[in-house]
Amino acid sequence: MGGDHGPAVTLAGLAHVATRRPDARFVIFGQQDAVLPVLEQMPKLKEVSTFVHCDVAVQMDAKPSQALRHGRWKSSMWKAIEAVKTGEADACISAGNTGALMAMSKFCLRTMADIERPAIAAIWPTLRGESVVLDVGATIGADAQLLVDFAIMGAALAHALFDIEKPTVGLLNVGVEEIKGQEEVKEAGRMLREANLETMSYQGFVEGNDIGKGTVDVVVTEGFSGNIALKTAEGTARQIAGYLREAMNSSFLSRLGYLLAKGAFDRLREKMNVNKTNGGVFMGLKGIVVKSHGGADAEGFAAAVELGYELVKSGVFEKTRTTLDLYHARKPATLAVSEVSGA
Amino acid sequence: MGGDHGPAVTLAGLAHVATRRPDARFVIFGQQDAVLPVLEQMPKLKEVSTFVHCDVAVQMDAKPSQALRHGRWKSSMWKAIEAVKTGEADACISAGNTGALMAMSKFCLRTMADIERPAIAAIWPTLRGESVVLDVGATIGADAQLLVDFAIMGAALAHALFDIEKPTVGLLNVGVEEIKGQEEVKEAGRMLREANLETMSYQGFVEGNDIGKGTVDVVVTEGFSGNIALKTAEGTARQIAGYLREAMNSSFLSRLGYLLAKGAFDRLREKMNVNKTNGGVFMGLKGIVVKSHGGADAEGFAAAVELGYELVKSGVFEKTRTTLDLYHARKPATLAVSEVSGA
Repeated sequence: MGGDHGPAVTLAGLAHVATRRPDARFVIFGQQDAVLPVLEQMPKLKEVSTFVHCDVAVQMDAKPSQALRHGRWKSSMWKAIEAVKTGEADACISAGNTGALMAMSKFCLRTMADIERPAIAAIWPTLRGESVVLDVGATIGADAQLLVDFAIMGAALAHALFDIEKPTVGLLNVGVEEIKGQEEVKEAGRMLREANLETMSYQGFVEGNDIGKGTVDVVVTEGFSGNIALKTAEGTARQIAGYLREAMNSSFLSRLGYLLAKGAFDRLREKMNVNKTNGGVFMGLKGIVVKSHGGADAEGFAAAVELGYELVKSGVFEKTRTTLDLYHARKPATLAVSEVSGA
Repeated sequence: MGGDHGPAVTLAGLAHVATRRPDARFVIFGQQDAVLPVLEQMPKLKEVSTFVHCDVAVQMDAKPSQALRHGRWKSSMWKAIEAVKTGEADACISAGNTGALMAMSKFCLRTMADIERPAIAAIWPTLRGESVVLDVGATIGADAQLLVDFAIMGAALAHALFDIEKPTVGLLNVGVEEIKGQEEVKEAGRMLREANLETMSYQGFVEGNDIGKGTVDVVVTEGFSGNIALKTAEGTARQIAGYLREAMNSSFLSRLGYLLAKGAFDRLREKMNVNKTNGGVFMGLKGIVVKSHGGADAEGFAAAVELGYELVKSGVFEKTRTTLDLYHARKPATLAVSEVSGA
């Protein structure tokens, strides 16, 4: 039901995936009046899908607390997440309201043991290929321990998606040294260096311009600066696309040049297309949830669904779980208060 | 002495300004062996300049504390800042080490009364023209009061540079509502709304993508996220320029198209050129200091010098001072401890 265009686009996206991944099966949650007429026209998709009617759909502009109040237990969003919890589905994909999806996912699936708060990981196109950037908006502020957990989860995701044995990891920081504050970033750096984990190669601090360069496979930061980095990059890309359009329309020669180079421009547009690498992966929950851009077209939504499919196949959830367990087991045990007082 | 290319570029930049602004006078601080041979070849610049030899030059990679230890009282950077303090100069422009320049400026000029910590304001090119974004890296973390002061200073700068009577101001935030943390941003929003200042039109929260759109004239944030936004935008611009180069080189037709549209591409490059709007303005100090990009060419350095020139002419320093005084005078007086204990 989610996204700017609703079932017309999300079902068209599913139809693409049904063709390309013959072993995929779908459980579709939504309002029957909106979904069934579209699904009827897609016999191939219908064949591999189960439809579950839900009375309530979470609005795109609902606040997370409103969505929880009105949509818990019964909305299509809740039911889709719950299907992951019960094992009916391996992953949940939604183009709906991000805040509501995260709030419901936390409430329904709960975070993994040891993980205080979840993260949203973005797959970021770079000059070297793609990188994982997390958190891009789930948690505002993070202590050193949470940043280390984000690093472990991000490395597991990069390993699964990019097939890199030991992904390189950097902590997002500002260039000026000896500056006050952000002690948690420095502390996280010390912890990652000491832990010397086998699942990643920690590279130290990186700056904002390193993201697009692809300096590291995984960029770790808390959700406020991560969200601002993501949105600023999107805004800059749109700004330059605007300049480019303007420049190519500025004279007869430039329009002619544009026509001759149209193939190249189309490939450029493809590269700058957020749809191609669409999907924010919710990390740190007891189950796989992928958020598609609300504005995604059918191919964009298909990309988000296929991302979920790959995550299931790669076993990233289990690998993340194992690394986190190993890391947290190695930490010096905390002396429980009861032991002290009972002595 | 600063910048990646030293006096060859900075003096060439000054020579441009000397031609374009006949009423400007320069005091040049540096090592005579490096500066004088270059200056000798620029008789017009020499005529309007005074040269002051300094034994020490702050290294581009020196830590701020090192720079202060080795360069205080005697380095060319320190002497240039001191010239503003003594009134010998109206503004200091440097292409040197940012951290050192800020540390020395704070130490030498001190912050304005009521201003706890200074900010660096960037002039950011947008789809609508230009915006002021601050802080882009001077202070990590800011409380609500400091964000309000940044808003006042940013509005004064936008007023002076863009000639807008009542610049629009937004606080940088993430889109997801009801999210934990960043209480200081929400509190700053409440304070700005209540203060209802005559010098700005407060518009509420903006997101990362609003910066490039030019949604507001002034974007206010603390230095960590501001620095990450700035560097991420620079990285994204470089990334897309790389894609564009690659696309235009990909076939015979695209190369031909590029040649035909070359004029348009040149204008695009001009628009994406950081040199054109070069200069970070240090705000909140008792004097004008402008930081030029270290990598700027002569025209870029000239742009930073002319930015300083315009700031002096516009009286932005005095206007900022007046608005800050008005605002802080209106705040309810704080009951001093001595009054309480003395009662």
